[in-house]
Amino acid sequence: MGVLIKNGTIVTAENEFKGDVYIAGGKIIAIGAKLGHRPDDEVVDATGKYVLPGGVDQHVHFSFTYNGSKVRGFETSNAAAVGGTTTLIEFVNQEKGKGLIETLEAYKASDADGIAMVDYGFHSVMTDPRDEVIEEIPKLAEAGYPTMKLFMAYKGMFFHADDDAILKALRKGKEAGVTIMVHAENADMIDVLTKQLIAEGKTEPYYHAVSRPPVVEAEATRRAIYLAELAGAPLYVVHVTCKEALEEIKQAYNRGQAVFGETCSHYLVLDTEDLARPNFEGAKYVCSPALRTAEHRQALWQAVDRKWLNAISSDHCGFDFAEQKHMGFGEGKSFADIPNGAPSLQNRLNILWTYGVCEGKISRTRLVDLFSTMPAKINGLDTKGHIDVGYDADLVVFDPEYRGIMSAQNNLEGVDYSPFEGFEQKGRPETVFLRGMKIVDNGTYVGQKGQGRFVPGKPYGAAYED
Amino acid sequence: MGVLIKNGTIVTAENEFKGDVYIAGGKIIAIGAKLGHRPDDEVVDATGKYVLPGGVDQHVHFSFTYNGSKVRGFETSNAAAVGGTTTLIEFVNQEKGKGLIETLEAYKASDADGIAMVDYGFHSVMTDPRDEVIEEIPKLAEAGYPTMKLFMAYKGMFFHADDDAILKALRKGKEAGVTIMVHAENADMIDVLTKQLIAEGKTEPYYHAVSRPPVVEAEATRRAIYLAELAGAPLYVVHVTCKEALEEIKQAYNRGQAVFGETCSHYLVLDTEDLARPNFEGAKYVCSPALRTAEHRQALWQAVDRKWLNAISSDHCGFDFAEQKHMGFGEGKSFADIPNGAPSLQNRLNILWTYGVCEGKISRTRLVDLFSTMPAKINGLDTKGHIDVGYDADLVVFDPEYRGIMSAQNNLEGVDYSPFEGFEQKGRPETVFLRGMKIVDNGTYVGQKGQGRFVPGKPYGAAYED
Amino acid sequence: MGVLIKNGTIVTAENEFKGDVYIAGGKIIAIGAKLGHRPDDEVVDATGKYVLPGGVDQHVHFSFTYNGSKVRGFETSNAAAVGGTTTLIEFVNQEKGKGLIETLEAYKASDADGIAMVDYGFHSVMTDPRDEVIEEIPKLAEAGYPTMKLFMAYKGMFFHADDDAILKALRKGKEAGVTIMVHAENADMIDVLTKQLIAEGKTEPYYHAVSRPPVVEAEATRRAIYLAELAGAPLYVVHVTCKEALEEIKQAYNRGQAVFGETCSHYLVLDTEDLARPNFEGAKYVCSPALRTAEHRQALWQAVDRKWLNAISSDHCGFDFAEQKHMGFGEGKSFADIPNGAPSLQNRLNILWTYGVCEGKISRTRLVDLFSTMPAKINGLDTKGHIDVGYDADLVVFDPEYRGIMSAQNNLEGVDYSPFEGFEQKGRPETVFLRGMKIVDNGTYVGQKGQGRFVPGKPYGAAYED
Amino acid sequence: MGVLIKNGTIVTAENEFKGDVYIAGGKIIAIGAKLGHRPDDEVVDATGKYVLPGGVDQHVHFSFTYNGSKVRGFETSNAAAVGGTTTLIEFVNQEKGKGLIETLEAYKASDADGIAMVDYGFHSVMTDPRDEVIEEIPKLAEAGYPTMKLFMAYKGMFFHADDDAILKALRKGKEAGVTIMVHAENADMIDVLTKQLIAEGKTEPYYHAVSRPPVVEAEATRRAIYLAELAGAPLYVVHVTCKEALEEIKQAYNRGQAVFGETCSHYLVLDTEDLARPNFEGAKYVCSPALRTAEHRQALWQAVDRKWLNAISSDHCGFDFAEQKHMGFGEGKSFADIPNGAPSLQNRLNILWTYGVCEGKISRTRLVDLFSTMPAKINGLDTKGHIDVGYDADLVVFDPEYRGIMSAQNNLEGVDYSPFEGFEQKGRPETVFLRGMKIVDNGTYVGQKGQGRFVPGKPYGAAYED
Repeated sequence: MGVLIKNGTIVTAENEFKGDVYIAGGKIIAIGAKLGHRPDDEVVDATGKYVLPGGVDQHVHFSFTYNGSKVRGFETSNAAAVGGTTTLIEFVNQEKGKGLIETLEAYKASDADGIAMVDYGFHSVMTDPRDEVIEEIPKLAEAGYPTMKLFMAYKGMFFHADDDAILKALRKGKEAGVTIMVHAENADMIDVLTKQLIAEGKTEPYYHAVSRPPVVEAEATRRAIYLAELAGAPLYVVHVTCKEALEEIKQAYNRGQAVFGETCSHYLVLDTEDLARPNFEGAKYVCSPALRTAEHRQALWQAVDRKWLNAISSDHCGFDFAEQKHMGFGEGKSFADIPNGAPSLQNRLNILWTYGVCEGKISRTRLVDLFSTMPAKINGLDTKGHIDVGYDADLVVFDPEYRGIMSAQNNLEGVDYSPFEGFEQKGRPETVFLRGMKIVDNGTYVGQKGQGRFVPGKPYGAAYED
Repeated sequence: MGVLIKNGTIVTAENEFKGDVYIAGGKIIAIGAKLGHRPDDEVVDATGKYVLPGGVDQHVHFSFTYNGSKVRGFETSNAAAVGGTTTLIEFVNQEKGKGLIETLEAYKASDADGIAMVDYGFHSVMTDPRDEVIEEIPKLAEAGYPTMKLFMAYKGMFFHADDDAILKALRKGKEAGVTIMVHAENADMIDVLTKQLIAEGKTEPYYHAVSRPPVVEAEATRRAIYLAELAGAPLYVVHVTCKEALEEIKQAYNRGQAVFGETCSHYLVLDTEDLARPNFEGAKYVCSPALRTAEHRQALWQAVDRKWLNAISSDHCGFDFAEQKHMGFGEGKSFADIPNGAPSLQNRLNILWTYGVCEGKISRTRLVDLFSTMPAKINGLDTKGHIDVGYDADLVVFDPEYRGIMSAQNNLEGVDYSPFEGFEQKGRPETVFLRGMKIVDNGTYVGQKGQGRFVPGKPYGAAYED
Repeated sequence: MGVLIKNGTIVTAENEFKGDVYIAGGKIIAIGAKLGHRPDDEVVDATGKYVLPGGVDQHVHFSFTYNGSKVRGFETSNAAAVGGTTTLIEFVNQEKGKGLIETLEAYKASDADGIAMVDYGFHSVMTDPRDEVIEEIPKLAEAGYPTMKLFMAYKGMFFHADDDAILKALRKGKEAGVTIMVHAENADMIDVLTKQLIAEGKTEPYYHAVSRPPVVEAEATRRAIYLAELAGAPLYVVHVTCKEALEEIKQAYNRGQAVFGETCSHYLVLDTEDLARPNFEGAKYVCSPALRTAEHRQALWQAVDRKWLNAISSDHCGFDFAEQKHMGFGEGKSFADIPNGAPSLQNRLNILWTYGVCEGKISRTRLVDLFSTMPAKINGLDTKGHIDVGYDADLVVFDPEYRGIMSAQNNLEGVDYSPFEGFEQKGRPETVFLRGMKIVDNGTYVGQKGQGRFVPGKPYGAAYED
Repeated sequence: MGVLIKNGTIVTAENEFKGDVYIAGGKIIAIGAKLGHRPDDEVVDATGKYVLPGGVDQHVHFSFTYNGSKVRGFETSNAAAVGGTTTLIEFVNQEKGKGLIETLEAYKASDADGIAMVDYGFHSVMTDPRDEVIEEIPKLAEAGYPTMKLFMAYKGMFFHADDDAILKALRKGKEAGVTIMVHAENADMIDVLTKQLIAEGKTEPYYHAVSRPPVVEAEATRRAIYLAELAGAPLYVVHVTCKEALEEIKQAYNRGQAVFGETCSHYLVLDTEDLARPNFEGAKYVCSPALRTAEHRQALWQAVDRKWLNAISSDHCGFDFAEQKHMGFGEGKSFADIPNGAPSLQNRLNILWTYGVCEGKISRTRLVDLFSTMPAKINGLDTKGHIDVGYDADLVVFDPEYRGIMSAQNNLEGVDYSPFEGFEQKGRPETVFLRGMKIVDNGTYVGQKGQGRFVPGKPYGAAYED
């Protein structure tokens, strides 16, 4: 039995056109004008609707632990589905003393397999750069994990990486096409500023942003670019948030280096005024890098429109406000005790459509590239992120006429707040297919736990192609 | 009756994949895996071959006259067909005293309609910037000519444009989505250098390059960018040839301006050593801007790979060597008397494939973007340049195994020489369809005179989208 | 008989120190701590005062004619003297059909010799770039006129220069060390904008600025830099007024070109709000390039502080408000009919001291460099602009405690208004010596008509040294 | 009794002129044309010679210890004197557990006072950034040590500084006008490269340069600039050696930051070919940053000419070749075991004159600025580095006609080799005065041990003035 999606406007990163899509065996079998179908095929009428490739969210945290307190995990991945995202790639921190693949596979087995409700992959995060760990990097490629991140920020934390680790990773990674990613913030700068602010009694959530101003991000970005230049390797910078870091990436690319970056949905619509909300509400917006002033948002929209950044991720990290965010509340506590991160798994597409497409900041084709196509290419997922014959039938029938309000109430992320609470929503993923299975119907999740599969990435992703 | 192209590797600007393409009524009707077909359909087996969208050559001269001597015209447009190009856009100089559209339509009727063997459109070239001509610019959009060029070079020639004409054109053009293009060379610089060289007896073809060094192109490019900034209008720079001009375009784009440019196939493979050939052979390579030293070629390949330039045209201009190029030969003559231009209509794809794809400088998908997709988008040809449902069935079945030698001998351009004489050729367009009609079969032109149609462009082409 | 200036704080471009200066024979003979003197020497006690080198104003218009109406001339050069300026360099437009030197010498004889009250030199302004005029350029150097300017602005005026004239001038000038200067504004841009504004009825003085926005200056500056690059010659840009043009100059210098520029005192303290004054008062501020918005002023102060610009001139041009500026008033008239220029001969030092030094924008040593030392060096005046043994005894004893108000009333410029009317003045030139002659005493001019001498400049000025 | 230096050509950073200098009480008392003198005054005839201010060498190592082995110290400071340098500023590493001033004063008492043969000052080098040490920084200013350096290089060494130390130093330093200097090389990059090279058996001295390529210096320079931006403090980069680092400094300055740097004499005339000399001779040229390829030398000469760098120091460090440099020789040893540094105390002026002035790379006035005037200003030495009334009578009578050969043989540095062995020398310091005392006569040192005095620097040196 197949599925025929009829009369929709198919949108790819390249163009949009009216047509039908025929699905069978989990794959896209044909695209055509007025395709026929078999009697037992399901027919979905997409008249007046857009047919988009399912989203690929390459920046998700399901396993982050802060002071012994964990975020929500793959059991909430149906939130991705209703948000039009059909593939997630999570960052998994290497456990000290364990190998990279060992850590990934243990985590995969215990926390993802049989639980995930959309397809998934993993980025390794190297925390323990011993020689034997460095040697393991090329094996990541073989094992289907062709990306690895290092944290330049977080001085004193076990996952902080020094320049030598990054340089070794870049050099070793390019032997096998592993793309090295960095969280680019200067750990020392943050440390000095944080201690000073706390000493001055400036402990409210707002000071989180003061403790990590744009220069913190720009410096680390520039440093990573220099390390990549020395290594002769491509570099991918996650969550770019400010004009200064963006400028470093643009200049590197224009000199001929293979340097690329993403931004995240919240940096496009939230800013330091949110961090300044009273009654500790600002804690909901504590993430790293910090939210920026409004002028940076405009620069980021331009950057995603002009391909200076090539993906928009969620950086989803689901800490509750009531308990977890409040670790930074009260006597002797400060913004530095607030776990970093905000939940945004479900609303990535909604944000991009409502505040990007509807406000003329990006076209629909550009949205598809940022939301699906490029993240798939970066991560070597060659059956994901595009609507063409032979691709996985991960498809979103998007209704542009829907109107709603974003809220924690109508959200499957399982977190007790949404950073987008009260935001107007235009349009929604009405029907979502994962490898041909209908998992969202009329905006409601109708799939099953564990239906998601691990998707191994191929090495030499898009950052290597340039 | 339809056509089914089976088992090929379909290449678009976005990706490549194995599949079938079904054509009927001149359009692409379906793309699929193992598509069925009707008994009377023609079936083309493309196993082991690539299926590319037919090329769009946005820079062609069929009507250029120099000292009363004309180039070859549309009667040689079958050369485009065998080269895999199915749409040509020609630059037509406004005749002094006549209107823009008046000139275009008269030329179209007399020189193109009923003659052309591939589809075609026109760029207007404004030479007479009277107020009433400026007012006519928005009407170009309505008439299907959404682009207009001005010549910054050629001091003293009737088609030279001053800054005020360019500024007015940019301002008026954006009212209706007409994309303004410039030939960017500083006419005064060239004039001073040319007179000096001739006074010094340096008259051989090689001095053509000395009389118009890169700074000549860079300055005019920068000036046009400033004019576009003042006008708040997009700008398209034709035939970018050197690092310096390229840098100006990159910087403008990175500041946020909508500035784009193309290069041409000969600038990627020829250089000043060709101009220096003895026995007046250098005259074959006299074109403007001039060929550059070899280091610029590398910069251009990088530029087309990285999307700093977004199209590769031919700038085809068919003057014979025997008579026409020799206008600059002999007593009292100099390089300045040699008509500018070289024939390259047929070999654009062959050059890009053999020296680009086969040498690892660009990918096949990138080739398609430069050769077909972006030129179509820039010129508002929304049924051309891409393989997808609803597009014109302009298709090239490309055989990568073919081996040959480029030569005037096996060339339909009708000119007595080829600038690529003796160049190795890898691969060739084996079968070419124009709106579903097979016009090239087994590498041989099999179409008919006049089968090409005028394709009106839509305003607000790709230069406006950014 | 000599003069001993005792106990002052001597300020040079290099440093400042307490000391005495001894003058005899029109020259500085000694600088020392507690110098002795002869009984008949005049002794000037400079305790509590600064001793500065007399100013060199390299940008003055005494001979400008607009619609048959002339500015004030050398008969008002005592205004320079009371303002601490002891050398003036005037721009003299070549008369069509006459030679460069012929024009200069005729003008010098009729309008300067025997009239000037401070020393003087001339810049030639080439308006008629015939071959024989170009050939004359090296002879300027021999004749003591080692600088020549061209006007890129003023389309349609006899003194407008095209690119070919500038290029020829640059190439010929460097043969003999003649420094080429340009008034950098794009004439075509201004022409298009002006006609449009007038057609729209926007004729008030304020629209003068709208008709020549910063891009107009930036483009021409960049073009002149490209011309200088092609010529391999140094370039001097007069009256730089905006960030954009400044940036072009900085970038050129940083690439290694010998490109330099000045700004003028009025661009540092006036802005477009002055142009917007009601009752046609804005006409007093119509000069070219136009006044800019306030943000550019800050950039200019930084630029003169950091040596990105190396001189501050007056661009003095004395048209009366009552008659001459009113040529642009009334029915059928517009800003385009207002003669360009403003009187500022007397207040250059007062502006720099009060609004530069007293507000911490530049140091006293930097002021001396901008006001005296660098202008002397640029123009090859090797006995001017510095306090050291062997230099001309052109000295200003400056009283920092004086307080006054700038006004046309207390001004010797002979013009019926001052653009600085009502400006607070801190400090003043109390005593001024010209080659050892006291020409200002207690702030009052005490010299004689014709005491100024022509000072021939030497070729290969400072723009060539780099 | 005074001294009259007659008829010389006095050269300052501003200009040069013929004149006499009169000295008494250790100070310059007068400068004049044909000054008289008292009968008992000494008269030095400088006809045909140049009179220069005594040099200030702001980068000297007299106390460096490597593996328990010390360099030559102040007992060889007569080498500076015969080289025309009359003031030295040494870098003194803080001893762990001791205070900054405590370390400096102990060292001064034991190793400099009573020994030095020219005047001297000290830069503190912070190695132990505890809170109480940070608090001590402003006190450096009061104590006459207004500069402090940190080493970004040398991972694992006690004197290596992390970013937090640099940031704290910059922030605290600006409270009191202490100028922070950095040795800018990325320690991690060097460490990774060094270990790899040794593992590959690439141990010869030449690989020292391979282990610390330009990117190593450029990265650290950029990082220090970002740290200074965050601190809002000026920054001084010592020993800039390559185009890339230079570019970072230029760009920072052009953005408006107060970032400055020096280069050193050996980087201007030596290159990696010297490091590649056979028979372990390359070890003589092992210094950090490493010598560069020849193209960088040209860039450095341009940089000192154009004021992109503002001082030329020696970075003198006197390790013997026979014993000390050979620590890196033999089985199990590598370039990484060779003590870094080369002796160049004596030849700084000789190099600058012979290879700078005589080859037209810099003018004499520019030499004086780089050799004397700016180093004095940077370090707050307001009686040094210039010839004017009131300055210390530190003067060099320089004979431009002298011809010689540089060699360890005719050198007072006390080291068993010279990196400039066999270099042609044009001109020499013939007579040198230190505060009016003749310490070099006819090129021979005639002074006494201990005649040098400590010269306290004033805070807010030249890096703060901008």
